[in-house]
Amino acid sequence: MAAVSEKPKQKRIAIIGGGLVGSLNAIYFAKRGFKVDLYESRKDPRSQEFVQGRSINLALSVRGIESLKAVGAHGPMVEGGIPMYARMIHPRNGKKYAIPYGKKDQCILSVERRKMNEHLLTVAETYVNVDHHFEHKLVHTDLENGRVTCSWDDTKVEINADLIVGCDGAYSTIRKEMMRKPRFDYSQTYIPHGYKELRLRPTQDGQFAIEVNYLHIWPRNTFMLIALPNQDRSFTCTLFFPFEQFDMLTNREEVIKFFSREFPDFKDLMGEEYLVEEFFKNPTGPMVSIKCKPYHVKDKAVIMGDAAHAMVPFYGQGMNCGFEDCLVLDGLVEKHNNNIGAALADYSRTRNPDAEAICDLAMYNYIEMRSSVNSTLFLAKKKLYSFLNSLMPKTIIPLYTMVTFSRIPYHIVIERDKFQEKVGKKICERN
Amino acid sequence: MAAVSEKPKQKRIAIIGGGLVGSLNAIYFAKRGFKVDLYESRKDPRSQEFVQGRSINLALSVRGIESLKAVGAHGPMVEGGIPMYARMIHPRNGKKYAIPYGKKDQCILSVERRKMNEHLLTVAETYVNVDHHFEHKLVHTDLENGRVTCSWDDTKVEINADLIVGCDGAYSTIRKEMMRKPRFDYSQTYIPHGYKELRLRPTQDGQFAIEVNYLHIWPRNTFMLIALPNQDRSFTCTLFFPFEQFDMLTNREEVIKFFSREFPDFKDLMGEEYLVEEFFKNPTGPMVSIKCKPYHVKDKAVIMGDAAHAMVPFYGQGMNCGFEDCLVLDGLVEKHNNNIGAALADYSRTRNPDAEAICDLAMYNYIEMRSSVNSTLFLAKKKLYSFLNSLMPKTIIPLYTMVTFSRIPYHIVIERDKFQEKVGKKICERN
Repeated sequence: MAAVSEKPKQKRIAIIGGGLVGSLNAIYFAKRGFKVDLYESRKDPRSQEFVQGRSINLALSVRGIESLKAVGAHGPMVEGGIPMYARMIHPRNGKKYAIPYGKKDQCILSVERRKMNEHLLTVAETYVNVDHHFEHKLVHTDLENGRVTCSWDDTKVEINADLIVGCDGAYSTIRKEMMRKPRFDYSQTYIPHGYKELRLRPTQDGQFAIEVNYLHIWPRNTFMLIALPNQDRSFTCTLFFPFEQFDMLTNREEVIKFFSREFPDFKDLMGEEYLVEEFFKNPTGPMVSIKCKPYHVKDKAVIMGDAAHAMVPFYGQGMNCGFEDCLVLDGLVEKHNNNIGAALADYSRTRNPDAEAICDLAMYNYIEMRSSVNSTLFLAKKKLYSFLNSLMPKTIIPLYTMVTFSRIPYHIVIERDKFQEKVGKKICERN
Repeated sequence: MAAVSEKPKQKRIAIIGGGLVGSLNAIYFAKRGFKVDLYESRKDPRSQEFVQGRSINLALSVRGIESLKAVGAHGPMVEGGIPMYARMIHPRNGKKYAIPYGKKDQCILSVERRKMNEHLLTVAETYVNVDHHFEHKLVHTDLENGRVTCSWDDTKVEINADLIVGCDGAYSTIRKEMMRKPRFDYSQTYIPHGYKELRLRPTQDGQFAIEVNYLHIWPRNTFMLIALPNQDRSFTCTLFFPFEQFDMLTNREEVIKFFSREFPDFKDLMGEEYLVEEFFKNPTGPMVSIKCKPYHVKDKAVIMGDAAHAMVPFYGQGMNCGFEDCLVLDGLVEKHNNNIGAALADYSRTRNPDAEAICDLAMYNYIEMRSSVNSTLFLAKKKLYSFLNSLMPKTIIPLYTMVTFSRIPYHIVIERDKFQEKVGKKICERN
């Protein structure tokens, strides 16, 4: 990586949050020659054996890859990711089948959150103008004046920055501070489902327990189970289930009865003992969809990633959208010749409709993924749109493809999909 | 008023906020025999010459009146209110006309916020089991355990209550505390318009400057001016105007030019000097629509009124809905035999759809009031529905009548209106 030499009036960027979006942002701002300080309340994950946090694995797709590529940080992640070319549907009757994500060579990559985060922190560290500050907990911010106070090892650290970048996740403190300003629109919506992760171990002879290159789904209409492959040949499985019903699975017998009835194949793969152990060991987490605007305060502060637009996980776009945020903002800073104020105003205005669009699409997939994938209509529609796409590859692009395998702005994706739905409907009516 | 004697295990209610909903709630809980302490950060308005706060006057209608009646607090407010039987529309061409609100005897009452508040505080005080605590500022709350800390005259007051009732308005601290709990849904949406109040004085011979028994509207599609009569023969007028355009009226000339062009009759009534004085003296306020759920924490805390559902002011239902909250909760406490936990759960579940419905209706009227009232289609529809109502008085009730002159739950109002729209459409298609 190239080290950037100091300039006379080097702008100071304080990034709050050293997760996925914070660490990629550090690289972007560093490449631009700014002085970057990254503050993270947790310990450096690279020095830890176990890391607590959000869900274990993620599906990296085109928007994420392009955003990594633009700063040359894609290599190990793209090479190390496990390609998933299709959904593998596991119906109750046990007769599983695959539904491809796109064309033959199109896939999404299963990557591990921790590996991605550690990789990005390490890349950021290669820049002399980046400093990481772990175990720094934000205690006070004055966004208007670019001031941040962190607590560190019983002392308080005062920071003056030209720009505060809040990449502090769905429960963002920077966003809470923005909410105190007049005329800040905000919404948070929890869905009735919770999620619980369960690790499916490799087989005794060290192999993947189920087909590796798929995102496995056990759709059961009102709930579902999914599984993503890991590099260590385990799978991270996630049960999405209404909180009310989670509350009723209080003991070993009920858990076994439930899995025997709903996911008998999965129960056999896990083994009863280990399934029950995992079930009670791992927490049940809530899922929230967050929208807000504007994303910035003058030329002094901006929120990005989950801090600005947390979404339910059903389109696999949370990380991809957050990474694309960095790419988009960087383009605007370039467009406005490093004029931060102009770039931030432009960013708030143009990025908000896209972020809200993907939040909506993710919420829509919350239903589709656990129920529609079961229906013959869903499959017929998939076939219709890939057929139309083969006839008119630039005009008709399946929705999933636009979201996952293109960089078409999300709000345009929704507009085009509405148009395509009309075309599809007309064709069906004529035939 | 009847004084209630102490019972062995008298429940303690801490009401946070002594505005309209807080003071009415104090009466409701007092009547039920609870020990009520009401905490308000401002001084007692009855001891003040000037009182800062929200908009000056309000339109009291059936839901509000019924809620006052149930605790015998309606008398002076209903008698002192100025009846408004119709909207008086002032088009640009100066040819004004009236659109009645309902049947001949149906009216809404223009009441002054301050008078209403002082009246309710005084009624509450007649109960021996009520104590008012003014100049008590909330500094800390522990909702789960019913603990509240207020600051008062440089000292801290610790309060233990069986129930904390947050009636602390749109920027509620109690609601902010609830937001810290898991799975609390919340949204706040600011509209692009701001509002500015302007006082239209009585004429030199002490008369109302315009027709008294009307709510005057100067609709101009993208903005509007309204006027409500006061008991002192002045009118409180409010200009609803986009913030961006407010920002452009920076000096005397621009203000006069604007009013001369858009509201020449109004400008003449105000007089140029006084109009400009009022315009620059009075602040421009934002308007926000707030939805959230649930409204309660266990059997320990509940939010009511604007704290739970602030709405834009275009249906004149903010106070009426807040008062109805008190009546509804009281009914549920009765239904559940004073079991607060059961009543609160029932209240959150049943009141939320109604509160969200009136927030939506108010937002819808934000457009109707400044633009649709101008259209012939709007007038034709009004006539159609009052005609249908005369044929089928129980089946077809105009939307405005259901909201303003009935206690039909707001969410049912929306359902019935959708049905009525279909009926109306069919009739129009046949003729």
